[in-house]
Amino acid sequence: MSSLRSGCEILCIGTELLLGNILNSNARWIAEELARLGLPHFRQSVVGDNPERLRDAVLEAAGRCRVLICTGGLGPTPDDLTTETLASTFNVPLQHRPEVMADIATKLQARGRTMAAGTEKQALLPQGAAVLPNPTGTAAGMIWTPQPDFTVLTFPGVPSEMQAMWQQTAEPWLQQQGLAQGTFRSRQLRFWGIGESTLAERVAPYLEYTNPTVAPYAGLGEVKLRITAWGENSDDADALIAPVEQAIRQIGGQDCFGGDNDSLASVVLDQLRQRGQTLAVAESCTGGGVGSALTGVSGSSDVLLGGVIAYANRIKQDLLGVPTELLEREGAVSASVVEAMAQGARQQLSSDWAIAVSGIAGPGGGSAAKPVGLVHLAVAGPEGCTTLEKRYGCHRGRDWIRGLSVGDALNLLRLQLI
Amino acid sequence: MSSLRSGCEILCIGTELLLGNILNSNARWIAEELARLGLPHFRQSVVGDNPERLRDAVLEAAGRCRVLICTGGLGPTPDDLTTETLASTFNVPLQHRPEVMADIATKLQARGRTMAAGTEKQALLPQGAAVLPNPTGTAAGMIWTPQPDFTVLTFPGVPSEMQAMWQQTAEPWLQQQGLAQGTFRSRQLRFWGIGESTLAERVAPYLEYTNPTVAPYAGLGEVKLRITAWGENSDDADALIAPVEQAIRQIGGQDCFGGDNDSLASVVLDQLRQRGQTLAVAESCTGGGVGSALTGVSGSSDVLLGGVIAYANRIKQDLLGVPTELLEREGAVSASVVEAMAQGARQQLSSDWAIAVSGIAGPGGGSAAKPVGLVHLAVAGPEGCTTLEKRYGCHRGRDWIRGLSVGDALNLLRLQLI
Repeated sequence: MSSLRSGCEILCIGTELLLGNILNSNARWIAEELARLGLPHFRQSVVGDNPERLRDAVLEAAGRCRVLICTGGLGPTPDDLTTETLASTFNVPLQHRPEVMADIATKLQARGRTMAAGTEKQALLPQGAAVLPNPTGTAAGMIWTPQPDFTVLTFPGVPSEMQAMWQQTAEPWLQQQGLAQGTFRSRQLRFWGIGESTLAERVAPYLEYTNPTVAPYAGLGEVKLRITAWGENSDDADALIAPVEQAIRQIGGQDCFGGDNDSLASVVLDQLRQRGQTLAVAESCTGGGVGSALTGVSGSSDVLLGGVIAYANRIKQDLLGVPTELLEREGAVSASVVEAMAQGARQQLSSDWAIAVSGIAGPGGGSAAKPVGLVHLAVAGPEGCTTLEKRYGCHRGRDWIRGLSVGDALNLLRLQLI
Repeated sequence: MSSLRSGCEILCIGTELLLGNILNSNARWIAEELARLGLPHFRQSVVGDNPERLRDAVLEAAGRCRVLICTGGLGPTPDDLTTETLASTFNVPLQHRPEVMADIATKLQARGRTMAAGTEKQALLPQGAAVLPNPTGTAAGMIWTPQPDFTVLTFPGVPSEMQAMWQQTAEPWLQQQGLAQGTFRSRQLRFWGIGESTLAERVAPYLEYTNPTVAPYAGLGEVKLRITAWGENSDDADALIAPVEQAIRQIGGQDCFGGDNDSLASVVLDQLRQRGQTLAVAESCTGGGVGSALTGVSGSSDVLLGGVIAYANRIKQDLLGVPTELLEREGAVSASVVEAMAQGARQQLSSDWAIAVSGIAGPGGGSAAKPVGLVHLAVAGPEGCTTLEKRYGCHRGRDWIRGLSVGDALNLLRLQLI
């Protein structure tokens, strides 16, 4: 039978998925990883927290694929039954794993928590299963081959834990199994300030390539192009990527702000660090979002001094020195006020540069002249101040407007630094 | 065999889902609708644009369920092969449908488009299949019963078209089939400051309930309990939820901060709004995260005045008035400095309350005495200042430490307001 089986499948376990309570972001994340690793993947399934239906789904998968990747149902509560169901499906007894128990105890202790009932169950794995360690949480997974040429990997449903376990243990394990045919390598290029369809049009000939392939992905304001090449080895694959990357960077020009793990915040911080310059922020509608994005980058303290969240007009006056008369005449959401905020932050914090944002994130507070989605941005630096007016519209909501404002503000500074 | 089959399944067809290029938002949307309509739903599957694998998935589903809801693969391009594969799976010939063709022609004409190659194929449906009209796009679906007690519904993958077709035709059709057994209703309770397993232990008897069911979900610091009830109608279901909700709220006590759409930020803002009091923030390691969480709630400007992002020590001194001597003696990450930050923010911004955060988010900057993950929190109010020391450890990384700090800071204020 083994010759009929091929590739990987993903099985997500959780009644919350069947009730439509949450999006299956784990399936997408794993699918993207499998594609990146060059591992064939032909089916995804979802079942609820139900032992019979889970058993049926596992047995069906065991007849079709060589690696089954399961997420969910590894917690301590009674509806977490993935491990015990897998064990009973293949008639293998569960075994207490002292090393898993010790790891749980250490983590609970570090957080000042006591061990609850049900925790014991998390240290039970089928006989013969290897531990798939969870570096961040208490729910360990396993790598288990219950029958020849069929291996099950289990992960908890919490995305951050699943991803950390994947990167630390599952990915290297999968790479060693020889399931991939050759090596896939990929490189992401990141763009800001250009729409997905416009970018796709500009790089159209590359989207037809077969090796490397080039695929666009759109997120909140950001567009990514993933260049994926297959080769006998990494060097071969990288050699296929290089010329395409270079050509696309040329086409993208200033809209391409970086690759792979770059973010607008990290790129701006790197630029300022090289110059030995400092940065401050002054935020109204983003309320700390620009500061949070910058301080999300480790090492940002070299560059970012801090800032003022000036949500109320009085704070714009008192802490940033925005003239009362200007606020009254132009309104808080205006080019002149956002410029005064940036200049005020630069002075009050004695920084080389300052970013300021003021806008109407909605849903309330809009008018005909100043509708929801209107945001003014400013960047003040050693050579003066630049402002930018954006009209994001109201149809995508408050989070979208605030998120785009953060990105556009950082991008405005990035363009000043080029 | 029909007695073994029950409920509905969702089958999403598209190689882009297997490559992880897009999130399967259609499965979630349909799942939520099925739950709302009280239709049992036990499995979701995804296959690529591959006739053999699609056929296998359909035949498997035909052995398990009574209604199979398919999305994707109804377009004009060569990789759109859902309809023809379904027809061949059940050995039924395709039939040209002039009314479908006429509808496509009308729509293309209205948009000034000519008929492309492949369009003809969209007017072919299996003999005996009813048309599931597409009010907005050109890809019609079908409602087809290829074998007794097994019906397939097909929808295009474009979410807006699928949803319009669902609401106009599929939902009324499903309601007439007598598959629904009453109505499902659900209610979420949200907790902070208690682990999933500890909460599960406290509410253990309720986790065994069958109607309503109670299920825990853990996120970043937050734990949710979802109470889901089935009843003949919504009132019956709600009546089952009410006493369980009340009992669990009692057990949860102060750890339960709200329900459904509440967040720690929204709850704190509501409390302060009722008191007519204002709030300011002073953030070091969270760098604007507390402000961003608060301003993420629409209407927060009634309560939140703003704050200071005091990332560098100099800003703690200059903008918050933290004594230099205190910073030198105790260090920036200390109870006395975070208290001085909160008091400083309260004074500088003339607010009733202030939240302050200072900690070591890592990965660098830790020491034996002050390791990565050590965070000091303070809440200053009309009756004095409360501080809290948290040690999150370093194993979950910077984002986790910062995210927990934001939640714990808001929660510290919430507890002061009770």
